[in-house]
Amino acid sequence: MPEKRKVCVVITARPSYSRIKTALDYIQRHPDLELQIVVAASALLDRYGSAVNVIERDGFKINAKVYNVLEGENLTAAAKTTGIGIIEISTVFDNLQPDIVVTIADRFETIATAIAASYMNIPLVHIQGGEVTGNIDEKVRHAITKMADAHFVSSSLAQERVIKMGEHPSKVFLTGCPSIDLAVPILQSTRLDFDPFQKYKGVGEIFNIEEPYIIVMQHPVTTEYESSRKHIEETLQAIDELKMPTLWFWPNVDAGADGTSRGIRVFREKAKPTYVHFFKNMEPDDFLKVLNQSRCLIGNSSVGIRESAYLGVPVVNIGSRQSGRERGKNVIDVGYDRKEITAAIREQVAHGHYPSENIYGDGNAGERIAALLKDIQLTVDKKLAY
Amino acid sequence: MPEKRKVCVVITARPSYSRIKTALDYIQRHPDLELQIVVAASALLDRYGSAVNVIERDGFKINAKVYNVLEGENLTAAAKTTGIGIIEISTVFDNLQPDIVVTIADRFETIATAIAASYMNIPLVHIQGGEVTGNIDEKVRHAITKMADAHFVSSSLAQERVIKMGEHPSKVFLTGCPSIDLAVPILQSTRLDFDPFQKYKGVGEIFNIEEPYIIVMQHPVTTEYESSRKHIEETLQAIDELKMPTLWFWPNVDAGADGTSRGIRVFREKAKPTYVHFFKNMEPDDFLKVLNQSRCLIGNSSVGIRESAYLGVPVVNIGSRQSGRERGKNVIDVGYDRKEITAAIREQVAHGHYPSENIYGDGNAGERIAALLKDIQLTVDKKLAY
Amino acid sequence: MPEKRKVCVVITARPSYSRIKTALDYIQRHPDLELQIVVAASALLDRYGSAVNVIERDGFKINAKVYNVLEGENLTAAAKTTGIGIIEISTVFDNLQPDIVVTIADRFETIATAIAASYMNIPLVHIQGGEVTGNIDEKVRHAITKMADAHFVSSSLAQERVIKMGEHPSKVFLTGCPSIDLAVPILQSTRLDFDPFQKYKGVGEIFNIEEPYIIVMQHPVTTEYESSRKHIEETLQAIDELKMPTLWFWPNVDAGADGTSRGIRVFREKAKPTYVHFFKNMEPDDFLKVLNQSRCLIGNSSVGIRESAYLGVPVVNIGSRQSGRERGKNVIDVGYDRKEITAAIREQVAHGHYPSENIYGDGNAGERIAALLKDIQLTVDKKLAY
Amino acid sequence: MPEKRKVCVVITARPSYSRIKTALDYIQRHPDLELQIVVAASALLDRYGSAVNVIERDGFKINAKVYNVLEGENLTAAAKTTGIGIIEISTVFDNLQPDIVVTIADRFETIATAIAASYMNIPLVHIQGGEVTGNIDEKVRHAITKMADAHFVSSSLAQERVIKMGEHPSKVFLTGCPSIDLAVPILQSTRLDFDPFQKYKGVGEIFNIEEPYIIVMQHPVTTEYESSRKHIEETLQAIDELKMPTLWFWPNVDAGADGTSRGIRVFREKAKPTYVHFFKNMEPDDFLKVLNQSRCLIGNSSVGIRESAYLGVPVVNIGSRQSGRERGKNVIDVGYDRKEITAAIREQVAHGHYPSENIYGDGNAGERIAALLKDIQLTVDKKLAY
Repeated sequence: MPEKRKVCVVITARPSYSRIKTALDYIQRHPDLELQIVVAASALLDRYGSAVNVIERDGFKINAKVYNVLEGENLTAAAKTTGIGIIEISTVFDNLQPDIVVTIADRFETIATAIAASYMNIPLVHIQGGEVTGNIDEKVRHAITKMADAHFVSSSLAQERVIKMGEHPSKVFLTGCPSIDLAVPILQSTRLDFDPFQKYKGVGEIFNIEEPYIIVMQHPVTTEYESSRKHIEETLQAIDELKMPTLWFWPNVDAGADGTSRGIRVFREKAKPTYVHFFKNMEPDDFLKVLNQSRCLIGNSSVGIRESAYLGVPVVNIGSRQSGRERGKNVIDVGYDRKEITAAIREQVAHGHYPSENIYGDGNAGERIAALLKDIQLTVDKKLAY
Repeated sequence: MPEKRKVCVVITARPSYSRIKTALDYIQRHPDLELQIVVAASALLDRYGSAVNVIERDGFKINAKVYNVLEGENLTAAAKTTGIGIIEISTVFDNLQPDIVVTIADRFETIATAIAASYMNIPLVHIQGGEVTGNIDEKVRHAITKMADAHFVSSSLAQERVIKMGEHPSKVFLTGCPSIDLAVPILQSTRLDFDPFQKYKGVGEIFNIEEPYIIVMQHPVTTEYESSRKHIEETLQAIDELKMPTLWFWPNVDAGADGTSRGIRVFREKAKPTYVHFFKNMEPDDFLKVLNQSRCLIGNSSVGIRESAYLGVPVVNIGSRQSGRERGKNVIDVGYDRKEITAAIREQVAHGHYPSENIYGDGNAGERIAALLKDIQLTVDKKLAY
Repeated sequence: MPEKRKVCVVITARPSYSRIKTALDYIQRHPDLELQIVVAASALLDRYGSAVNVIERDGFKINAKVYNVLEGENLTAAAKTTGIGIIEISTVFDNLQPDIVVTIADRFETIATAIAASYMNIPLVHIQGGEVTGNIDEKVRHAITKMADAHFVSSSLAQERVIKMGEHPSKVFLTGCPSIDLAVPILQSTRLDFDPFQKYKGVGEIFNIEEPYIIVMQHPVTTEYESSRKHIEETLQAIDELKMPTLWFWPNVDAGADGTSRGIRVFREKAKPTYVHFFKNMEPDDFLKVLNQSRCLIGNSSVGIRESAYLGVPVVNIGSRQSGRERGKNVIDVGYDRKEITAAIREQVAHGHYPSENIYGDGNAGERIAALLKDIQLTVDKKLAY
Repeated sequence: MPEKRKVCVVITARPSYSRIKTALDYIQRHPDLELQIVVAASALLDRYGSAVNVIERDGFKINAKVYNVLEGENLTAAAKTTGIGIIEISTVFDNLQPDIVVTIADRFETIATAIAASYMNIPLVHIQGGEVTGNIDEKVRHAITKMADAHFVSSSLAQERVIKMGEHPSKVFLTGCPSIDLAVPILQSTRLDFDPFQKYKGVGEIFNIEEPYIIVMQHPVTTEYESSRKHIEETLQAIDELKMPTLWFWPNVDAGADGTSRGIRVFREKAKPTYVHFFKNMEPDDFLKVLNQSRCLIGNSSVGIRESAYLGVPVVNIGSRQSGRERGKNVIDVGYDRKEITAAIREQVAHGHYPSENIYGDGNAGERIAALLKDIQLTVDKKLAY
């Protein structure tokens, strides 16, 4: 009997988990695959929402935890976090001896996974190559593409780009994004089946969730570190003018996290807003339900570009973080400007939901990924295709 | 008066120094540039030839030394060496505050320079992108291309490839390789102007350097780690059959270094060869002189592909390390097979020198690079050009 | 002219700065000494009060900053923080080339300073050896004693203990603690000369600082990690029962920091106390002024043992953190029990200030330390004195 | 049924293995103990004799390997090796979850084990505390004593010293040194039962092992880094004058290793000695046999002080490395001086073997240690006993 292929997935942040969750399910149930999960970086930390707890509650066994976030309010800390990540993750791979390593998307610390795997001659699969974002994520994403041995991309444009970059077409697979899989059942539902305030606590005002509400989710933009405080304040002022019931989700970790977080904290202390409730995190499913019922998503999360396109949720996308990414008709792009933001939110709330668009997946990504992990040829040598 | 641009060059290995030396000269003498040199990894270590000493003898001031080579006869050590490199090099950049960082070629540890610079938002220039090699170097080289903000390439084919990979054509400059600059005067000379045995000591037999001799320079191939011992033995047997006066240069550091090195050491102890002299290292100029006077270069060094094309030195290129690289008429490619190697050496020695070919530069790379470092726009944000 | 001795002081936490500040002044002004300051670990971090800002405001130049705090809610992170500290601090010493290194007290990360200095053959001076505390601090403190080449101790009992441990008496100097130097002028003053709410902001209720108030300062106890949440809750309940105006200072970083901090945060959200104001940090002088005017200090800070003895401030000392330390008549020791705590606070508030006691210094420690750093013989070899 | 106690022993160098081997045997066979072995640092490296291979051949299962030796010919590398060691070993402890950690002797990198264990609240046992050596080993040894929760010492004088240092007498156990256990059967034997040249290869001359021979084993002395080359040359010259058949053992890793090693290598190349054979390592038993048959041991190894006292082998002890250690009548101490060395060797060869002395153990250390590991109370809090 042939041995099962050991597939090791490294998850380093809250949003990455949503982008792999259904694939984890299919890998775990696949008779020829053995799933290994490594949780690292901000996915382990309380102040970034402890994705690790969600993963465990979902019934996944975690094979190793890697604490590598170095504290420090500067960009150097991001580099060092990555260095520590390489040191620790290579030890983990030595212990787990995976046949394939899977890394997700483009956060700065994910390159540690790519380096550890490729230097140790373990075939590397990259989820979500070929998209464009700008800033450091852009560099990280494409650098990982050049280290990866196979690519599972979300959109046909992404597929085209990865091949143009010199990857062999036979190694580039259009799977769609597993995060869209999660949205399939939500698209059908008409109302929330849980009370977010009761289930997720959080802090701040509690309002009637049946009433219209909006959602804010704004992350710092790495290469504009010093201005992240200023950016968030434009959004805070806009929200303060509208005074609509608002669910606000804390940003995940980044070099500038504290600029953004402090802006929010100071606002809470001073403005004592009576219409905002702050959450750290929700299980992916619950978040999508809350998103689907909202009147508008504001901020710069890629959820606005991806899941919201599928769900048809109106989005006000702020600043450069998602620039260049394929987007649906549901998105209005604005700058870091309270007036622009206010106007766009008003427009979107008035418009209401958009028709569902199928840009980043058709809902079968997880199953496709598991099947590919079973079938792809395991190689570590590659050359530019031109 | 505008401040000088601070250009920080990180050198991690012996051969990298030859590929930047003339540029260092021009940068140092440029009125608008301030040169910062960081020496790291095997370039600092005695058993890999202490490139650091050569750099200092050439009159360059070293701003920081980074010891990051982790000992261990395995691939994990290469990953960890890189992780330590990131941690240390980011501290160095914090101290030196360069305006531009320059990284050279494709050795595994060079990605530490690329990550530290790009995560810290320092514009990154990559020397020698766009070439192809296979194995881990291939992945590292192209990953660095995707992190670099400007590219100084050696050949027109390399330029074409970097642009195809999605880099903006305005950021890709065909400079040629500075190592060719060093070869310009040597091409004219007709005999050695120094005694290598006296100047560089080394160990083993001393013979009349005026007589015909050959050179061996064979590095382990990272992804074929366990077989590096076997590979080197084919070469050793071939050399042992020919018994021509031979100058043998020790390999530089790699995950499999000890497989190769041990093969050589055991051969020395057992065969006690009377026709071989072993060197650790030579100053770049001296090495080119010795190369130019040799009858044949054997092994897998890129010197056989690059400088030897310019000098017309006959080359027997063994194995996969240089596969896919542009090469001149002077190269015969063979496998890891003592018979093939022996036959090819005999053929090359019988043939004698080839006409000079101009594939990797015209001798003005260093000057061009310094001028560009003064003139290029300093940016850290980029996007795929398609 | 002889060169100045380069004295490098490494400061890793807020309280350590108070225990060296007057010495820094005297070193800086000493004609034969050159002061080098390295700020590391939690002393750099915003959420532990950014001691670094205070140091700079006091006019000291910082030669290097070392970010080494690894995030993670577990004890392993403390070990790794120390490992990263050694790697980084040894680079700093390589750059600064100090003649003497000074390390302060007993926090876990201070052993990184001791190891870097002693392994690099730099004479090491330890401030505050010979005291006893229990738990990991106890191990760290005495281990550093065994690595140090000279000892500047605070009390005669500490001096006796260091000598008993086998250190040569000629290397053990009773200097007193520089933190007491800071308290000399404060002892004379009768009222606050600044408004803490205005100057330090903080969050929570603002009350009339002329009215009687108490202070709380409670740190997690490393080896009782999991119970730190429970410990803090006893204190919170006691404070909640008394409802006296209270100044609460956030704990500094430790493995269990988040247990304690979360306890406090949850209390704030739920109890919404109207009689507490929370501060992150104050300049040492200001803190002593606030302390001197308070009716009672509650918690487990060593300030209760040291400065409070000199100032005669009544103290309720909770739990094991200070057990075994010399203390004055001003201290009542209690367990982690809300009833005990409440009763002791009531007793102390009723009693009022105690006479000044001179246990940890006479106010001239800083001057003595600077003079010794100039005069002591620089040696790195030592042996047990028995 | 109670769970077995998990005892984790960390071995970082060749000689440390001899000092724990018989204890490992007894732990492994003990019904209430589970043995975990971690091999780290130079014990893993080929050029320091790969102790790891010996350990595996002896039938022990290795639970984790930790590569942490940072290359670099300087003292900073020793500090950084320790920092990397802490980072890696704490991960190992996280995985293995030992109930007790055992660290051996005083090499610089062993403090990494002590820090990882004590910061993670794992009870720490230290083997061989209380001895004196001078230089960095002295600092490391006693610092570990202050971090250890129990002490298994080799001699009654060591026991006395550990207690004097403030450790509670109930935690200090006189076990003797397990290395003496290995010498018990050898003391009875009258001739070698194997051919060292055939079994261990090595390089250099092969002579009749039945004829009188001497042994050299000289390590660099850390704090005299730059002079290690000079030191070894005095010994080399002395040996060259005597020209007796000589077994020379390479030094183990230290900051100055390359000074010593290079001295030896240059000597081999130049003097081409016809009376010396060089070995990297032997299994502990075999080494003791070879030692017992030798006419004299020369150098600065602690084997000369410990096992040689028991075996009565004449010793010429060079320099400061063993200064202050208890020694038997069999030792002549000399300085780094070829004449002194030559004269002392002649005297010892003429004298012949000495009577057995029982200073560092009676041959039952291993058994005692295993029993104690089963029985001692597991605590991590301690205080100075005075």
